[in-house]
Amino acid sequence: MISEYLKNKQVMIENALHECLPEINTRPFVLHKAMHYCVLNGGKRIRPILCIAVAEVCGNSHALLPALSTELYHCSTLVHDDLPCMDDDDLRRGIPSCHIKFGSANAILTGDALLIHAFQILAETGEPRLTLELAQAAGSRGVVAGQVEDLAAAGQEPNADLLDFIHVHKTAILIRAAVRMGAILGNADEQDLKYFTLFGEKIGLAFQIEDDILDETSSEEVLGKPVGSDQEKNKLTYPAVHGMEAARSAAARLTHEALVALEAIDRDTSVLEGIATYLVNRQY
Amino acid sequence: MISEYLKNKQVMIENALHECLPEINTRPFVLHKAMHYCVLNGGKRIRPILCIAVAEVCGNSHALLPALSTELYHCSTLVHDDLPCMDDDDLRRGIPSCHIKFGSANAILTGDALLIHAFQILAETGEPRLTLELAQAAGSRGVVAGQVEDLAAAGQEPNADLLDFIHVHKTAILIRAAVRMGAILGNADEQDLKYFTLFGEKIGLAFQIEDDILDETSSEEVLGKPVGSDQEKNKLTYPAVHGMEAARSAAARLTHEALVALEAIDRDTSVLEGIATYLVNRQY
Repeated sequence: MISEYLKNKQVMIENALHECLPEINTRPFVLHKAMHYCVLNGGKRIRPILCIAVAEVCGNSHALLPALSTELYHCSTLVHDDLPCMDDDDLRRGIPSCHIKFGSANAILTGDALLIHAFQILAETGEPRLTLELAQAAGSRGVVAGQVEDLAAAGQEPNADLLDFIHVHKTAILIRAAVRMGAILGNADEQDLKYFTLFGEKIGLAFQIEDDILDETSSEEVLGKPVGSDQEKNKLTYPAVHGMEAARSAAARLTHEALVALEAIDRDTSVLEGIATYLVNRQY
Repeated sequence: MISEYLKNKQVMIENALHECLPEINTRPFVLHKAMHYCVLNGGKRIRPILCIAVAEVCGNSHALLPALSTELYHCSTLVHDDLPCMDDDDLRRGIPSCHIKFGSANAILTGDALLIHAFQILAETGEPRLTLELAQAAGSRGVVAGQVEDLAAAGQEPNADLLDFIHVHKTAILIRAAVRMGAILGNADEQDLKYFTLFGEKIGLAFQIEDDILDETSSEEVLGKPVGSDQEKNKLTYPAVHGMEAARSAAARLTHEALVALEAIDRDTSVLEGIATYLVNRQY
């Protein structure tokens, strides 16, 4: 049932992403082609789905454009992350990464263009709070901070505090922002916003730990990239620091805490429970 | 007199940029250090000065934060432009480029963080029109488009149409946006906004042609980078396509057209005349 909900939303979001991008036959062709290539590649669309789902829980069914901005920004980070001087990943979701297909210079500019497009779409909604939400989540105290520390941590001694900093910043902050944007769009009161924020942070952390687990335990076919690439790059991951068993129980515990946060919200949040449970049990 | 005005504004903007950046002793240290390094390096600050000057001409003396956003975005483009896979410039304003000092990965993330910070500051002003203005000027139909075509054009046959596309997008669009943001902040009416827009576009084009001229005719000491680097990289420049004499007369003609646009505005625009004249006569 939740898988059907997610599938429907994914299709809807995929179509809307296609619509919101600059047309592929407009200049510069290579840039617009690369933007489509990097966005329309069958991602899970977790961030926009959460934004839309939370807004719907709060009675607002018009969260699509802000939701897309979270995905566009997320895609921009993946394009830059994959670059040779960063994580040096040749494959993304089973196909050549942007820089393999279009060259590094165009990949840098494609990431920049997607990032800017995310803010353009938010500006068009006319709600500065949403722009602020994304900017704070993304910037030098958000996702970018996580990426800087993630790169610097490669090859270093296991360090639980640093791992926590990276997971919070690289992943949880943006998922939390997507949830908060949905709540802001739904005019949630301060109390509900607080618990939605908690929900977003908990599932964001659980999501990243599950990501670390899958990188070691999944198959290349399902992941769309080689298994064990974190280990190969000496990445600081949850299993590397705490072991696989602790990773599994941390993901389960955080998901439980996310569900507890939902209980404090006096609305029908069953779809959000479904998403949280799906995320921790996913295969890729 | 105008040089004193510019000097005063430069000092004020330099201080405000320092204030608006994340504190250098906060985590991630390397990122915040790099952001300060790439922004606080004695740039000309043309874009924020124009934004502030136009707003002042229109009676608004509170354009500082939006003005800073244009400079932060501009700095982000320079950091990415200098990267080895892009223009591969080791020097910027006489000191090592960001990637030389902090490595390519940190340079990419520093550029991203500065770009996001520009939008964060705009969001804090609470005026979505300004965010939209910057996003449209910067994105895949603005500055990024110019950079993509600029890179693709290197080594190609002289092509006047392509040169024009690059100059409009890589440079004039952002200078025009800075001027327009000042006019929007000053509540300029549609008619005045139209002429301010024309003024911004014309001086933007003149500025880039002058930039091309100086790259060939200035000294390394004054430029802060090697003379003739455009030629060495087979860049498509105005002198390369049309010759040096035509470049000088085009810069003068565009500046004249900018001054004519100002005449249509029934306000005291003398400071803008001064800036336009300064820009075309500058030494670096």
